[in-house]
Amino acid sequence: MKDIIPGIRLIAFDFDGVFTDNMVYVLQDGSEAVRCTRSDGLGLQKLERLGIESVIISTESNPVVSARAEKLNIRCIQNCGDKRAVLEAMVAERGLSLAEVAYVGNDINDLPCLDSVGLPIVVRDAHQDVVRHAVYRTTRPGGQGAVREVCDLFEQALADR
Amino acid sequence: MKDIIPGIRLIAFDFDGVFTDNMVYVLQDGSEAVRCTRSDGLGLQKLERLGIESVIISTESNPVVSARAEKLNIRCIQNCGDKRAVLEAMVAERGLSLAEVAYVGNDINDLPCLDSVGLPIVVRDAHQDVVRHAVYRTTRPGGQGAVREVCDLFEQALADR
Amino acid sequence: MKDIIPGIRLIAFDFDGVFTDNMVYVLQDGSEAVRCTRSDGLGLQKLERLGIESVIISTESNPVVSARAEKLNIRCIQNCGDKRAVLEAMVAERGLSLAEVAYVGNDINDLPCLDSVGLPIVVRDAHQDVVRHAVYRTTRPGGQGAVREVCDLFEQALADR
Amino acid sequence: MKDIIPGIRLIAFDFDGVFTDNMVYVLQDGSEAVRCTRSDGLGLQKLERLGIESVIISTESNPVVSARAEKLNIRCIQNCGDKRAVLEAMVAERGLSLAEVAYVGNDINDLPCLDSVGLPIVVRDAHQDVVRHAVYRTTRPGGQGAVREVCDLFEQALADR
Repeated sequence: MKDIIPGIRLIAFDFDGVFTDNMVYVLQDGSEAVRCTRSDGLGLQKLERLGIESVIISTESNPVVSARAEKLNIRCIQNCGDKRAVLEAMVAERGLSLAEVAYVGNDINDLPCLDSVGLPIVVRDAHQDVVRHAVYRTTRPGGQGAVREVCDLFEQALADR
Repeated sequence: MKDIIPGIRLIAFDFDGVFTDNMVYVLQDGSEAVRCTRSDGLGLQKLERLGIESVIISTESNPVVSARAEKLNIRCIQNCGDKRAVLEAMVAERGLSLAEVAYVGNDINDLPCLDSVGLPIVVRDAHQDVVRHAVYRTTRPGGQGAVREVCDLFEQALADR
Repeated sequence: MKDIIPGIRLIAFDFDGVFTDNMVYVLQDGSEAVRCTRSDGLGLQKLERLGIESVIISTESNPVVSARAEKLNIRCIQNCGDKRAVLEAMVAERGLSLAEVAYVGNDINDLPCLDSVGLPIVVRDAHQDVVRHAVYRTTRPGGQGAVREVCDLFEQALADR
Repeated sequence: MKDIIPGIRLIAFDFDGVFTDNMVYVLQDGSEAVRCTRSDGLGLQKLERLGIESVIISTESNPVVSARAEKLNIRCIQNCGDKRAVLEAMVAERGLSLAEVAYVGNDINDLPCLDSVGLPIVVRDAHQDVVRHAVYRTTRPGGQGAVREVCDLFEQALADR
């Protein structure tokens, strides 16, 4: 981990199960809500100060994702059938390689991304079928400090250099 | 379990306590909300690919059930006093027998269904009075992975054949 | 417990912390929501079949309490500064004594009621200052099966006679 | 603790992570909700009876904070970039010193306040980087009894004198 982090320029996060506990609140009118932690905000501010770009990539298009991303002031790409293609396009635009990307996910639809980046990370409570695809598994579950933990790890690894 | 699964053609799920943690959020205007897990969606897609039909059967009629079922693209039968009669009608329509049905429940109003199907399943946190009526008890609680676990079990059992 | 239950004619429940986990969801518009469990409904139906009257007594007046009570089809008395006076009035109306009443509470504002009834009950996660005032402490926390547990205890104690 | 409490005249609370579990519910329309515990209300009433002033100081401006503060009948200062400056102004107005203030926080943005008051307190689940800055760490997590615990401690310490 400590050897890989200094080479990372971009961190891409899945939303459900990473920024949330993978739960969805369903209201009578069919609208949805999710639960996130306030602690993520202070973490993402650290990444920004470190000059590391952050992005949320979500398969589905959902207003709650937009709402949370706006509040956190983080870029958000939704409604993409192929997350890996999005990652590749972002990397090409910036003149980076996938080896310079970290990806944080939690379920089998994250496998193409986890298997292609330099630093694949899963949350503590990721589905058992994806755990072995990660270099690092957070100690905190999704939506309960996993994002902040990743940000803190970057801060510490870059401070220790 | 592994012997019974290949003969199952239809899985019927109770909603409250199976797709949810059996909790209900009550708002000031009297409307309700429930909490489900995003992980169930990927599981139900597996069942569809395996050619196994899924259905939600709920005693009560509640807009949150309709909303969740629509999002998951799964058929939903509500407002039925007699769940077992619904199961029997579905089985007759399809030319199946109850021995070819799995039922997933969590409380005493599920007993008539659990006691009549080929594969009775209860969630980890089912009421103590129904546990002994099941062939399988999930390791995950209702609303927190129980549905996905059942889907994963079917996928694995059918792959191992 | 088993000796006292057959003499009980009325069960009075506090709402917050008994029907709920004592949490309140605060929305931006100042409205509130609470979380209850579906399992309570089947329990209260048992009490009704046993001919035992149930009532919710809540100090505060809150639309979520009314909404939940209506759904559960249980009488609900709100906005009463003095819960014990309410209990005494109910008992007098019915020609009962407080010895024939069970009260389920969770915090220090329940002490006058707990100390005056025949069967004082607290939930598992009651405030430490009220626990010693109860004859029975549920094994399930408030809002997570405590009410159902009390109903099941009554059913069993009356069946065992 | 017991030696410091009798000298405290003002308790300042952070909101998120102290009155709440640091989680935020994000709704589709971008509005937010938080989860608090009813037990805090009875605790704050104790402080009032003891003649100790309470205040919520929150960096962000958020309608949910105003809503909760109004319900609890506690003063609330929001939208302040520099929490310590707010504390210093309050202290000066009242002719107190920071040594007569207790502050309850949970994350790194609370460090300036925690490091300047007479009684710095953190909640059980505070971020690891702030724990060593506190004289007392509550046994209950934020939003799940931490505020009530602080109030009960004051009541007991002042009763024991």
